[in-house]
Amino acid sequence: MFSPIEWHIGAKGPVVRMLDQTRLPHEVIWVDCPDHQTVAKGIRDLWVRGAPAIGIAAAMGFALGAQAIKASTYDDFVRQLKPIHDTLAATRPTAVNLFWALNRMNILVQIHKDRSVEEIKERLIREAQTVHDEDIRRNVAMGDHGSKLIRDGDTILTHCNTGALATGGHGTALGVIFTAWETGKRIKVLVDETRPVLQGARLTMWELQHNKIPATLITDNMAGAFMKKGSIRLCLVGADRIASNGDTANKIGTYSVAVLAKAHKIPFYVAAPTSTIDFSIPSGDAIPIEQRSPEEVANVFGKVRIAPANVEIANPAFDVTPAKYITGIITEEGVFKPGELKRKLGRKRM
Amino acid sequence: MFSPIEWHIGAKGPVVRMLDQTRLPHEVIWVDCPDHQTVAKGIRDLWVRGAPAIGIAAAMGFALGAQAIKASTYDDFVRQLKPIHDTLAATRPTAVNLFWALNRMNILVQIHKDRSVEEIKERLIREAQTVHDEDIRRNVAMGDHGSKLIRDGDTILTHCNTGALATGGHGTALGVIFTAWETGKRIKVLVDETRPVLQGARLTMWELQHNKIPATLITDNMAGAFMKKGSIRLCLVGADRIASNGDTANKIGTYSVAVLAKAHKIPFYVAAPTSTIDFSIPSGDAIPIEQRSPEEVANVFGKVRIAPANVEIANPAFDVTPAKYITGIITEEGVFKPGELKRKLGRKRM
Repeated sequence: MFSPIEWHIGAKGPVVRMLDQTRLPHEVIWVDCPDHQTVAKGIRDLWVRGAPAIGIAAAMGFALGAQAIKASTYDDFVRQLKPIHDTLAATRPTAVNLFWALNRMNILVQIHKDRSVEEIKERLIREAQTVHDEDIRRNVAMGDHGSKLIRDGDTILTHCNTGALATGGHGTALGVIFTAWETGKRIKVLVDETRPVLQGARLTMWELQHNKIPATLITDNMAGAFMKKGSIRLCLVGADRIASNGDTANKIGTYSVAVLAKAHKIPFYVAAPTSTIDFSIPSGDAIPIEQRSPEEVANVFGKVRIAPANVEIANPAFDVTPAKYITGIITEEGVFKPGELKRKLGRKRM
Repeated sequence: MFSPIEWHIGAKGPVVRMLDQTRLPHEVIWVDCPDHQTVAKGIRDLWVRGAPAIGIAAAMGFALGAQAIKASTYDDFVRQLKPIHDTLAATRPTAVNLFWALNRMNILVQIHKDRSVEEIKERLIREAQTVHDEDIRRNVAMGDHGSKLIRDGDTILTHCNTGALATGGHGTALGVIFTAWETGKRIKVLVDETRPVLQGARLTMWELQHNKIPATLITDNMAGAFMKKGSIRLCLVGADRIASNGDTANKIGTYSVAVLAKAHKIPFYVAAPTSTIDFSIPSGDAIPIEQRSPEEVANVFGKVRIAPANVEIANPAFDVTPAKYITGIITEEGVFKPGELKRKLGRKRM
């Protein structure tokens, strides 16, 4: 299975190897991150992106940072882990998978406090790989559940990138599309280009092309017109954080798609692993929205400036879609209505 | 008053001088079109764009083509005018102002069939200049009517470019904003970048910056999120063609803005001169929608490719907003509800 991130043993020791997705679709360039600072830079600069992949990168970055610690006592080890955790936690605020993965690594360290530092280091590597493996398994399960919602002949609108590139492999919303295609459903995908960083145009179109699935690229502002024409049977997007009540933070523009879908009576589904659900917050109002550099809007690929110099530009990277616009949330545990999340999944979470 | 197009007497005779808007905001380059074919190219390639400006360019192109005709009889003159008309009429299908202006020039030729060819040629030049002058007067009147809808402190969302650059001068929807600002209203403008050709980012931001009006650039997919936050008090857009019932064709993405505005109970106004109303068609279903080259989507400024090679791309240049989403239509005759157009303006039109 293709994965955009992996734990790799290089000539000088372990590295986190990640595909620099900012260079896609024109160049396929892998970067070996030798330390957790480089992993943090990779997350911040979008070499790796997508909530599940960010979680995996954070877990691997944490394990990588731990390897470099020289400590003879557990307490010293834990003290030195703190800045590694903090550096990784400060990269991006919205995707909860980042904090979920770091929390999981911290818990592992606490559980094994009677073990030697070297053994804990070893277990951290294994845990990061487990985070990765579990993500793939969850995505495949999500694909099985979600693809039942897709009918032969459907045209599906998707936003941003939620494929193998956004995860440990296979994908979330795009993973559902892959599973539907693999099980013989003849479908078409309409892909929002997803300004400003163009994850739809660059990454989703690349993945769909590689998988030979019929796809048409549109600008984000065309989605409504295609809905009006009756061209879209359902919408399928991912999530960066889902609140207890089902409110969903996802790539900027998702909210507009959801409102348009409702106005056209088109089902709107979110696909995300349960690790994306944040049961600690009651509603989407509490989800922090990352404000990114105006340069992402003003300079396409950092190469072509599209606006006059010295103008004001807003760049919220995410928006929140209220639960009332969401037909269902596809998880590895099954498909749920937003209002069912807390009751059906809330208690299972660690 | 700044105008993006003018009739100019050059060293070798008359030319249609137009600002090459595809080069804005980085370069301000004027092109002298020596013949109607170059004017047609300028319309097709978007050196000049915006429904009213296209109408003016077509009228000037027609007059320019007429000057080059060598004919001793009226019938010969009219026969040679036909391909000039057809070349200009074939440039862009959606903006009705193009056909309105060409029709007006043809009628002038018919009215003066008893005059000499040289005199008709002279009158065609004057008629083209009249089309231009009238457009400016209409825009100023539209500004007076429309600015009454704007309150001190408002934030206004606009889409595409509808300023001086899109017209003979002053602008339609953006002209209303200019008038509001000039009359002392402290307003802010939120500007959709307007993919794929980025008229909002390149042209509207440029005009607002030159007029020192506070403005913030956003990607098209952010509009919904800003509406949800309560940041937008009203939406104001232009039109390329308005059907008898008020259905309005305008730049792709306008329909999405209108649906989002309705969902947020935000007033949505269209500003357009009455020359943009096509009383010959009952509804928006009859408006032809121009499909432009996929390259406009795939290559930003023709410089940076944003998608993989050999993918399918859709590029409808316009969409139709049904009348039910439109709060009012601002014209030089006043502000009307979509349903009032036919009764109040239909009989006046030639």
